[in-house]
Amino acid sequence: MNESLGIDYPVLTLDVADLERQTAFWCAAFGYEHKGGIAQYHVLEDPTGTLPKLLLQRVAEAKSAKNRLHMDFHVADVEAQAARIEGLGATRLGRTEEFGIHWVTLLDPEGNEFCLVVT
Amino acid sequence: MNESLGIDYPVLTLDVADLERQTAFWCAAFGYEHKGGIAQYHVLEDPTGTLPKLLLQRVAEAKSAKNRLHMDFHVADVEAQAARIEGLGATRLGRTEEFGIHWVTLLDPEGNEFCLVVT
Repeated sequence: MNESLGIDYPVLTLDVADLERQTAFWCAAFGYEHKGGIAQYHVLEDPTGTLPKLLLQRVAEAKSAKNRLHMDFHVADVEAQAARIEGLGATRLGRTEEFGIHWVTLLDPEGNEFCLVVT
Repeated sequence: MNESLGIDYPVLTLDVADLERQTAFWCAAFGYEHKGGIAQYHVLEDPTGTLPKLLLQRVAEAKSAKNRLHMDFHVADVEAQAARIEGLGATRLGRTEEFGIHWVTLLDPEGNEFCLVVT
């Protein structure tokens, strides 16, 4: 809680076309649990508290451009995690090395960018 | 830390056109502190630990579509925070009420969507 600004906690909202498929992917890939939902919404929580709550919301329009906001997951073994998550339906875009850090960029099943970065 | 998946912590990366202006806005609006950076990157951290680390990265292309991923900030007083953050350069898109919850949607100075939701 940021007392001075009155900000309690953040939720990340992800627009999706296929609510069931995206729920299954994000749970399997990142350890989220589907905690319920209503209408076009599914609430996903990470029981370890590592990741922010994720709200999937079904929208009518498809993805049309690179997201200006994306998640970087810091992991101990980038290549092992990339291979595991590709096996769940992600697509690998490429590997980047810059300033002594390397990361792998992937797309979720609906084309949303995310990265795996060495901790 | 999610031990079973080896996921340590997340960072949110936001593409920006004007690194200085966006750094100033996100720090003033959400309590982030500019902790340094290199080349096209600025690292922003929330000293209260409420929000995930934010990495601003300057990119060549402009925003062209609604982001599929956005942040919802849970706050005690939505209207007060919306007015404060509008005063820092955000634009208010509208207020939505659904399933007994209401929230205000705003755009940051470069048009990135975010919401303020009652805690």
